[in-house]
Amino acid sequence: MREVFQQELAEVQDRLVEIAELVVRSIQDATRAFNESDVSLAEDVIANDKKIDELTVLLDELSIQILARQQPVARDLRIVVSALRISASLERMGDMAEHIAQLSRYRFPDKVVPKGLRSTFAEMGRLDVAIAEKLAELLRSQDIRLADEIRNDDDDVDELHASVFDKVLGETWKGQAVDTVDATLASRYHERFADHAVSIAKKVQYLATGDWAPELAS
Amino acid sequence: MREVFQQELAEVQDRLVEIAELVVRSIQDATRAFNESDVSLAEDVIANDKKIDELTVLLDELSIQILARQQPVARDLRIVVSALRISASLERMGDMAEHIAQLSRYRFPDKVVPKGLRSTFAEMGRLDVAIAEKLAELLRSQDIRLADEIRNDDDDVDELHASVFDKVLGETWKGQAVDTVDATLASRYHERFADHAVSIAKKVQYLATGDWAPELAS
Repeated sequence: MREVFQQELAEVQDRLVEIAELVVRSIQDATRAFNESDVSLAEDVIANDKKIDELTVLLDELSIQILARQQPVARDLRIVVSALRISASLERMGDMAEHIAQLSRYRFPDKVVPKGLRSTFAEMGRLDVAIAEKLAELLRSQDIRLADEIRNDDDDVDELHASVFDKVLGETWKGQAVDTVDATLASRYHERFADHAVSIAKKVQYLATGDWAPELAS
Repeated sequence: MREVFQQELAEVQDRLVEIAELVVRSIQDATRAFNESDVSLAEDVIANDKKIDELTVLLDELSIQILARQQPVARDLRIVVSALRISASLERMGDMAEHIAQLSRYRFPDKVVPKGLRSTFAEMGRLDVAIAEKLAELLRSQDIRLADEIRNDDDDVDELHASVFDKVLGETWKGQAVDTVDATLASRYHERFADHAVSIAKKVQYLATGDWAPELAS
């Protein structure tokens, strides 16, 4: 029974990595679609998100079946419950990538990234992609040093997020209302994407070290 | 054992109702703080959210203990897993209320609600409060007709959300960038609040009827 359980856990881990890799692809394409106003790439991201949603549902069903069949307790139980939560966060990361892609589609053929914020969004996008790549690797390797790197990258994303508002609310901002809306939403989506990654990284770190902290629930 | 399990499930339900009632209070206060620029009420909402977060963590711990001790299967297992997901959504509803409250605090002593959108946000706030009240009652009574009402209210919130962007991007919009940012974020938070309620309502409906649909994972 124990051996079957370990095989099933390995299957859960493989599927989490598979979904995380799709999220990497989504955020790569979404940020490129956003920064380069590439509407056909945006369509790919939107189609790709359906796949992420489907895989998440299948993984959740598998996790529930494992709970029913294996009746895990203690650490094993927390691993399966964490998998349910990690899949929910990955699903939301996919949604954020989709939202970023949708912004470039709404404005097409106009550019979606407001002037004066191009380098900021290029950097936020680069960080979100790096965070997603590190997250997929963290889920694969369980190398928890990556969790700290993800947290550091998230701090940088938060600073850029704040800088977007400084810019938009500053005296030199010449954007139209549409630019202000796009900058506000795009910045929020980039920031939430990174937040979800941090939330997942904390859970992986907990599973590796056993240090459960209340904030892990979030 | 079965009787103990039923008692524990009743305890989970009571705690979900308790958290939902705190969310009702939060969104009532947050929308009032937002619409009336009441910064002291906004502070109450922010303090209240810590309580919601704490209760969510405690409920999640209880749910995990029930999984470990009672080893539920089939429908009983799905009830406990759903409780974990419902608590996560309630926690996010609390966060959205907190974000709405924070907006009025950032702009104080200025009014946060942009001119021309006062009646729209008053109506969105009224709907979010009604949705939260119906959700608490749904969790208490399991009267699934309330789930349909919540979905209808959410459709109305979505329409108002779209109307905010129509207004802000229309030719008559005279708002400054700060007004555009506030309208964009506030509208998004109101809309997400309602989305989480719909997600919870679907789960309660499923538990009552047994009709599991893939979209219930979200």
